[in-house]
Amino acid sequence: MRLRHLLGASEPTEPPDSLHPPQIVVWDEAFFQGKKHEFTADCYSTPEHGFSTVRSCKIESGAWAGFEHCGFQGQQFVLERGEYPCWEAWSGSNAYHVERMCSFRPIACADHGRSRLMLFEQENFQGKRGELSDDCPSLPALGWGSSAVGSFFVRSGAWVCSQYPGYRGFQYLLESDSHAGEYKHVREWGSHAQTGQVQSIRRVQQ
Amino acid sequence: MRLRHLLGASEPTEPPDSLHPPQIVVWDEAFFQGKKHEFTADCYSTPEHGFSTVRSCKIESGAWAGFEHCGFQGQQFVLERGEYPCWEAWSGSNAYHVERMCSFRPIACADHGRSRLMLFEQENFQGKRGELSDDCPSLPALGWGSSAVGSFFVRSGAWVCSQYPGYRGFQYLLESDSHAGEYKHVREWGSHAQTGQVQSIRRVQQ
Repeated sequence: MRLRHLLGASEPTEPPDSLHPPQIVVWDEAFFQGKKHEFTADCYSTPEHGFSTVRSCKIESGAWAGFEHCGFQGQQFVLERGEYPCWEAWSGSNAYHVERMCSFRPIACADHGRSRLMLFEQENFQGKRGELSDDCPSLPALGWGSSAVGSFFVRSGAWVCSQYPGYRGFQYLLESDSHAGEYKHVREWGSHAQTGQVQSIRRVQQ
Repeated sequence: MRLRHLLGASEPTEPPDSLHPPQIVVWDEAFFQGKKHEFTADCYSTPEHGFSTVRSCKIESGAWAGFEHCGFQGQQFVLERGEYPCWEAWSGSNAYHVERMCSFRPIACADHGRSRLMLFEQENFQGKRGELSDDCPSLPALGWGSSAVGSFFVRSGAWVCSQYPGYRGFQYLLESDSHAGEYKHVREWGSHAQTGQVQSIRRVQQ
């Protein structure tokens, strides 16, 4: 992935994100209003920092995982560098409307070119299998015969899989540095996962 | 992008999607219920086919653009191969809740490796510029200094840009075969575009 600045570029590019430590700035009201707080490491519970919840945030560097509940529980939100002025900006699912993000932590990513993810038709790494090394907005378009995945093994990097094509719907974070990269059953994808319905998968961008 | 089937794969892969003509199957009720209709070409108006709207669909082949209103107007939905059991599965924006898709058409994609998109800080191809040849879930992470884009020139392929990082929020289809690839002003991104806020961009997958 690259953004090439051509002749006539009027501004220099910013340094690569990887040169910065992870940084998230959060507000307790939408559109970057109200109480403001900056974090460069895990936040286990926003109430412990005087926030009932987060209603807007900016990712200044790194990639972050946000969670519906304290203690990194509930619906997961992958937050990459940019501005999230309201709940709708980070929520993956329209069907499950809970305007809540009560914990968050940095995501350890690998170099994009070295990221590898194995997917299996059935739980416990059984059945038809495949390997991804690139982003995939539609697993069916690649020939994956089902709209579901039974289990994952993350060989390298951090990935986010989504319920529907085009990275829509509930999203689940898959990390080589977590669970030893083993996600043997839908129950291990995060406490919100109800089904193995997965139709798009991509690498997390740092 | 590839899905490699390793030793022990229990099923053959399906043929590449490009070997099939575009095909969408739509239902007038959610979860693939009610009146069913199959299309392999443009649908200018679902009411003309006896549908008030589409409430679920499956993309069997190709990539499709869905639109809120008849005549390919209103909010845009990029639909790649897979299953969309309800409105929430294809809507890009949680903030603008209209359960309506009244027209749709196939999208002409280029080979992924040959897709090229130029973006400009200001309208009419002015100001800081860059070129993309790969998917980008976060423009700020690539060093794009703003959360907005002023204009686009699609050199090759079909792209979808999104309001927020991670391909969330309102989405706008950019095609080399449309407007001669020129999107000089936010007004030309589609009749729903209100601002130039764009924080993620990717190629459409056929």
